[in-house]
Amino acid sequence: MSKKLTTRSEDYSKWYNELVTKADLAENSAVRGCMVIKPYGYAIWEKMQAELDKKFKETGHQNAYFPLLVPKSLFEAEEKNAEGFAKECAVVTHYRLKNNPDEPGKLMVDPDAKLEEELVVRPTSEAIIWSTYKNWIQSYRDLPILINQWANVVRWEMRTRLFLRTAEFLWQEGHTAHATRQEALDETILINDIYANFAENFMAIPVIKGVKSESERFAGAEETYCIEALMQDGKALQAGTSHFLGQNFAKAFDVKFATKEGKLEHVWASSWGVSTRLMGALIMTHSDDNGLVLPPNLAPIQVVIVPIYKGEEQLAAISEVALTIKQQLLDLGVSVKFDDRDNVKPGFKFNDYELKGVPLRIAIGPRDLEKNQIELARRDTLTKSYVPIADLGTVIPNLLKEIQETLFTKAANYRDDHITEVDDFETFKEILNTKGGFISAHWDGTSESEESIKKATKATIRCIPYTSVSKEGTCVFSGKPSAQRVLFAKAY
Amino acid sequence: MSKKLTTRSEDYSKWYNELVTKADLAENSAVRGCMVIKPYGYAIWEKMQAELDKKFKETGHQNAYFPLLVPKSLFEAEEKNAEGFAKECAVVTHYRLKNNPDEPGKLMVDPDAKLEEELVVRPTSEAIIWSTYKNWIQSYRDLPILINQWANVVRWEMRTRLFLRTAEFLWQEGHTAHATRQEALDETILINDIYANFAENFMAIPVIKGVKSESERFAGAEETYCIEALMQDGKALQAGTSHFLGQNFAKAFDVKFATKEGKLEHVWASSWGVSTRLMGALIMTHSDDNGLVLPPNLAPIQVVIVPIYKGEEQLAAISEVALTIKQQLLDLGVSVKFDDRDNVKPGFKFNDYELKGVPLRIAIGPRDLEKNQIELARRDTLTKSYVPIADLGTVIPNLLKEIQETLFTKAANYRDDHITEVDDFETFKEILNTKGGFISAHWDGTSESEESIKKATKATIRCIPYTSVSKEGTCVFSGKPSAQRVLFAKAY
Repeated sequence: MSKKLTTRSEDYSKWYNELVTKADLAENSAVRGCMVIKPYGYAIWEKMQAELDKKFKETGHQNAYFPLLVPKSLFEAEEKNAEGFAKECAVVTHYRLKNNPDEPGKLMVDPDAKLEEELVVRPTSEAIIWSTYKNWIQSYRDLPILINQWANVVRWEMRTRLFLRTAEFLWQEGHTAHATRQEALDETILINDIYANFAENFMAIPVIKGVKSESERFAGAEETYCIEALMQDGKALQAGTSHFLGQNFAKAFDVKFATKEGKLEHVWASSWGVSTRLMGALIMTHSDDNGLVLPPNLAPIQVVIVPIYKGEEQLAAISEVALTIKQQLLDLGVSVKFDDRDNVKPGFKFNDYELKGVPLRIAIGPRDLEKNQIELARRDTLTKSYVPIADLGTVIPNLLKEIQETLFTKAANYRDDHITEVDDFETFKEILNTKGGFISAHWDGTSESEESIKKATKATIRCIPYTSVSKEGTCVFSGKPSAQRVLFAKAY
Repeated sequence: MSKKLTTRSEDYSKWYNELVTKADLAENSAVRGCMVIKPYGYAIWEKMQAELDKKFKETGHQNAYFPLLVPKSLFEAEEKNAEGFAKECAVVTHYRLKNNPDEPGKLMVDPDAKLEEELVVRPTSEAIIWSTYKNWIQSYRDLPILINQWANVVRWEMRTRLFLRTAEFLWQEGHTAHATRQEALDETILINDIYANFAENFMAIPVIKGVKSESERFAGAEETYCIEALMQDGKALQAGTSHFLGQNFAKAFDVKFATKEGKLEHVWASSWGVSTRLMGALIMTHSDDNGLVLPPNLAPIQVVIVPIYKGEEQLAAISEVALTIKQQLLDLGVSVKFDDRDNVKPGFKFNDYELKGVPLRIAIGPRDLEKNQIELARRDTLTKSYVPIADLGTVIPNLLKEIQETLFTKAANYRDDHITEVDDFETFKEILNTKGGFISAHWDGTSESEESIKKATKATIRCIPYTSVSKEGTCVFSGKPSAQRVLFAKAY
């Protein structure tokens, strides 16, 4: 702490990286592409976990845990899934190290401890889970299975960025098994709704619900539902996905069940996940040039109290009041920190809590005490006001609610202002390179046009929105007939 | 479900394995030595996690997350630690699979994707964490660091058993950094106390707090504190360990801090952990030949309600009452399941919930309704009684408390009855092979005697108990002088 951050307009990408590290959220580790999630960042992730976990359980899901390592023969069973992930698999080939005879004190892989079958560090768990479900499912009475797991996964990405794309990341992955196609599809959509609701109402991140085009689908899925968010630099970010897997994994792992009528049928499936990538979405939706801006729901510290004083006597008087306020707020369920460190100045503290996105800051000086008031600063608007101490019990909870709503509205307005209907390819390119955001345009439904557009502009189809009214038109690229508009954007 | 379990007297080990799988706690997976933790087992683990997490946070610890994969050069930096774990390391050597040209549809490790430096799947995280702390610590003001992480680790054990010893397991690992030796030592002991308190008051597992002998110490520690429990077959089980690491890791990773006086000194450290092994301790402390017995604190379902009825009309009348009771208990914070499945008989349900260790079972039949009563069965004592429905709001919570206490007392009595003071080696061997349990005996403090005793009897020093009054004597094996008694046992 704490030279000024690079501003967003100077260099958005640099601003992001600096913010993540300076606000103590995460940092790069000694392992290529893997991050250390620091306590402050992890505390935010824990709040996301707790809320999602509650929502999953309320809808009948249970947690379980499946192995980290997947034998290659299982991994390759569902061909499309295997093909989709093979290029980014960390592979365990040996189970022992030994002393290196040539370099005393150093270790080497023991060639005698080569595994008969290599083990893949899970990039996703469909394979290991469906090989397990095979033994759990005999009859329709064993269905549905509604399981979630909180876990780490590894995907050996070549270009990594903190939270947004890391070789190892944390996530939850749900894996469900059903007796009918409709039930699996309903589950897929239910979860996408839970994700959207969570993003909007808990994280204050507006999202668009939709379906992926074939080329953007999860490897092994029949349909991928998603929520797409828009970052402040006009790029989209896929915030969560829910996959309808059809019977693909049931067929690959030979998972059948006896129906009520006694027939044997393959099981239907869904899988779905959100990850620590949401931390990136959170940061890039709300934060500003002074640092992080946190919605109160996610703030590890919602209110910080900073004393402004000279000498022990003033500090003692202020502390007494501060601690009373703190207790009062704690009793109301507000998380509060009283920062009475004596080795840094108030101004330093102000900057630090601004950088860390604490929603409300209370400052108390001797003159405030005389007037029975405090100075209250809002992180989101950077405005200050004086509030009578007697009113804090109502003002603070109301303000936290208001900030939560304000952040959502602000982000939703930005997003709405950045969905542009476009009908010709020249405008498409121009909008993309100037205004950015989502471009709502007709597409002929072919992978060829999609690929050509991507090559020409780097924009991909983010989703075919639920809300897209089927209205015929002509493809913005090929001029061929199109059934509806889809959303294009450059994306993280 | 549900042929009878093998009884403990028939074959204790078989009883354990059957119980773990039949009670739906866990099962072996397709990956050698790795388990699948099933929803019912995971729900118990989640209760342990929640309670421990609360205790850690109450004592000032924060959660964070460090990488799964550790570069070999970091792993080998602290030599004793490296030596201790090298023989059981899963090693990632490649980062890509490719199509196998000889076998269409199959994958193979891509030889072109060999890592320059191998990555060890963490067997424990001291190395990666201390290489990180190096950058976090400059001055005494950066200390202490009190961090915990919930994570999976891999130790390639040759002989594995569900929960007790698995190649992959879940655990929490705390890693703290301090300015002084005393502070690090205090932390080490504080955590061992938290573990003991948790085991006894939350899990109803009596434990003995003590210190390990040198040969049983954690690789890289100066001192290992532990809690030791006793299973029903007379074998001990190490339930948690807390290590005083001295300056070993600070020296290996060159982590120094500036003291208040401006001198540069190496940082002092502790690390500590408990794992899913606690599930094994839980099972083997309380369960019986009918199945699992769960302390109410850990029971995912504390009360199950089973209707006894003929026909829809009776079921409807019973359901109405059952759902009222359920709601009343839920409001009191009791977790309740009403099992109105119509495809299995009450007797089947009774057996199933006995197997799964549900502490209390309520059965309601038509005649009970007439008398405004229910039949209440205790899982721990297998006793039944009739209770007026109007009394349930007080009877059930009191009984849950009583069961929790009864289980602890029963286990504590068993444990106390199985600590035998022994003064000669013949009696030592005899007690070990007949009565089992802990043997309290004098030991001369040498690794040689310890090793000889182990070879002759398979008993190891479980700990040097805190409570051991220093009273001189002669070593039970060598006859040499001994400062105090220590506890020997065969162990899991």
